[in-house]
Amino acid sequence: MTVQTKPSDKITLDTLPTVAGFKLAGVACGMRRSGKPEFTLIVSEAPCVAAGVFTTNMVKAAPILVSMEHIQRSGDNVVAVVINAANANACTGELGLKNSHLTTEWVAEALGCAPQQVLVMSTGVIGVQLPMDKIEKGVALAVPALSEDAWSDAAQAIMTTDTRPKAISKHGTGYTINGIAKGSGMIAPNMATMLSVIATDASLPQAKVQEALSAANGQSFNRICVDGDTSTNDCVFLLANGVSGVDVSEGELYEEFVGLLTEMCIELGQMIVRDGEGATKFITIEVQGAPSSASAHAIANTIATSPLVKTAFFGSDANWGRIFAAAGRAGVVFDQAQANLWFAAGKSYDDGLQVVANGTPTQYLEADAAAIFSQEDIYVRLDIGAGIFSDTVWTCDLSHDYVTINGDYRT
Amino acid sequence: MTVQTKPSDKITLDTLPTVAGFKLAGVACGMRRSGKPEFTLIVSEAPCVAAGVFTTNMVKAAPILVSMEHIQRSGDNVVAVVINAANANACTGELGLKNSHLTTEWVAEALGCAPQQVLVMSTGVIGVQLPMDKIEKGVALAVPALSEDAWSDAAQAIMTTDTRPKAISKHGTGYTINGIAKGSGMIAPNMATMLSVIATDASLPQAKVQEALSAANGQSFNRICVDGDTSTNDCVFLLANGVSGVDVSEGELYEEFVGLLTEMCIELGQMIVRDGEGATKFITIEVQGAPSSASAHAIANTIATSPLVKTAFFGSDANWGRIFAAAGRAGVVFDQAQANLWFAAGKSYDDGLQVVANGTPTQYLEADAAAIFSQEDIYVRLDIGAGIFSDTVWTCDLSHDYVTINGDYRT
Repeated sequence: MTVQTKPSDKITLDTLPTVAGFKLAGVACGMRRSGKPEFTLIVSEAPCVAAGVFTTNMVKAAPILVSMEHIQRSGDNVVAVVINAANANACTGELGLKNSHLTTEWVAEALGCAPQQVLVMSTGVIGVQLPMDKIEKGVALAVPALSEDAWSDAAQAIMTTDTRPKAISKHGTGYTINGIAKGSGMIAPNMATMLSVIATDASLPQAKVQEALSAANGQSFNRICVDGDTSTNDCVFLLANGVSGVDVSEGELYEEFVGLLTEMCIELGQMIVRDGEGATKFITIEVQGAPSSASAHAIANTIATSPLVKTAFFGSDANWGRIFAAAGRAGVVFDQAQANLWFAAGKSYDDGLQVVANGTPTQYLEADAAAIFSQEDIYVRLDIGAGIFSDTVWTCDLSHDYVTINGDYRT
Repeated sequence: MTVQTKPSDKITLDTLPTVAGFKLAGVACGMRRSGKPEFTLIVSEAPCVAAGVFTTNMVKAAPILVSMEHIQRSGDNVVAVVINAANANACTGELGLKNSHLTTEWVAEALGCAPQQVLVMSTGVIGVQLPMDKIEKGVALAVPALSEDAWSDAAQAIMTTDTRPKAISKHGTGYTINGIAKGSGMIAPNMATMLSVIATDASLPQAKVQEALSAANGQSFNRICVDGDTSTNDCVFLLANGVSGVDVSEGELYEEFVGLLTEMCIELGQMIVRDGEGATKFITIEVQGAPSSASAHAIANTIATSPLVKTAFFGSDANWGRIFAAAGRAGVVFDQAQANLWFAAGKSYDDGLQVVANGTPTQYLEADAAAIFSQEDIYVRLDIGAGIFSDTVWTCDLSHDYVTINGDYRT
């Protein structure tokens, strides 16, 4: 059920390769008091097939609604993605929708394409109308700044409270995939959001792009958690312009493509967790022995979002009773007398310490458990003995800095 | 759908009235390093009809399993409740079950009744076996100490990390109801729990006791939230010994009884929220216009447990976008353009400030919203415009002290 992650290629922001046919710009248009860039444009010289996965929140931001419509109308013919930070354009009613449309119209006019060939993302404060004069300025500044080498600029211009940009590159057989992302669940104050744009010069039809993105997303972004708050603006796009001339739509090449894409999404997702607001630890929660994948996920997610479990991780307290109690309230039927629990240091499971056997504590030494919990990376494996399914969720701890960052915002 | 609470009678711990036929003791048996009392015994001179509501956590502590069995076997003939703090007797396997049975056997022997006439509760650390020598000492000390006036001792001996005891008394037509409670959800470090014992000298049959307790519980303890973690030991008992000679099993007297019981449970529940770990604010979340009671509750509960919402309350930040975003992920279908939101100061809704009308912000003044959020008691009313059902949940904020208390425990 779970995907093994390989260490990412050691690519720094400055050495991110280009992706054939894609140009980018990240510019400042005056929406941030700090003057830092917050306006991003990604353009492909050849039309792309595009796929998106969107927030399931009933409260959807205007750019989400517009991008869903544009992918539906011309997902096989996408030219650009425009992204603003500092304003989520969520809960902004009819005017908000009009403004997201207007943004795509301005980009389309500058690039000489149709508005529905432009996708749009926004991230930032909820309930404030977009400052359209600044959006107009952003378009005017970004178009002449477009460059194949600006992946680093784009990764930085989409940040909100992120402390570091998040970018990954993968090379396949004759093609490249680059991805950038921001945020960490809905940890970013008063908003949104998790955003990611992934671009490749591989060639594949639209149905396959959506299938590949949905598969990769299910194994990655849908398995990360900072605080359990789903944003109004979450959104991931995959654009494929085919410029490499390598068709990956079938057979082993498709398998390779989905594999690389999944690896990339897992690595971007894990970067988001590591950069979670106030996070000091990275925790892998693996649940085994469940009656279904969904129930394994429900238990892993309940443990990963429990405030008591997360504060125990922050306190380096190997407090397995809280993990058991969280598992028990996930809505999944199991017999506590069949449950087993192990802790290990690191991102992957290796040489674990069994702390619970058949529902009761083993004779483990508290010092051994404390040694594991003092690490930055901790692995938790829970087997509930109720089936053959498993699931993995990545989470972080709940620290004083989380409360400070989210309690002090806007004041 | 919601119950209006009346201000509680101003009864202090020292002036708690007695309940005819009930005697109590709260003694120290050496389980706490501090030497504070942690062993409580409640005995009725006349056998009681008894009802219980129990945690829905799949991981149930041994005393929960034993009390469920005893109520089933002799719920019309209960004589005593024995309670220990400092150890939850949860995740303790067969030996834990044996120890809970043994505790009831010792109490039964001392009182001259059958073990199944004794109910048992435990609260404290998970995964550690009960120190039975100390339990034995507790029984030996408590029985001779039994007194009609010891409600205050009992309310204090059941505390764990509570900062103050929680007790309420109500007078009906010729009878009295007393209730004591401890905890606040599963905020108490590494454990459990919310416990409450309610005793009355009114007379009613067992089926009616269970009906009354379930009705009151649904309107009160099931509507409070500190951190969303359901414990392994949650448990409420209602004992009625009929010593007053007042039969409240039918008609207006039954209505009065259920009304008083519900008031009491709401007040005890609200005391638990106010004493939530690290809590600085008391927040009422009312959701209106939902398609069902269950969906209204789901939305209210999602808002009440959202870390982003709770940290905003802590920061006195009238951050309505977070409330909307939490409502949107509760799994209930609604149209954001039909949703309205009001804030008010206080425990009840009065003179609210509308901040969102039909999904978009009104022209309210931030200073007015800030004035409300600077209060200790805050009322949130959300109408999602999707039906006629409503529900109310009481919650507290998420503060630095919560992280300190739960991050530092055991270390």
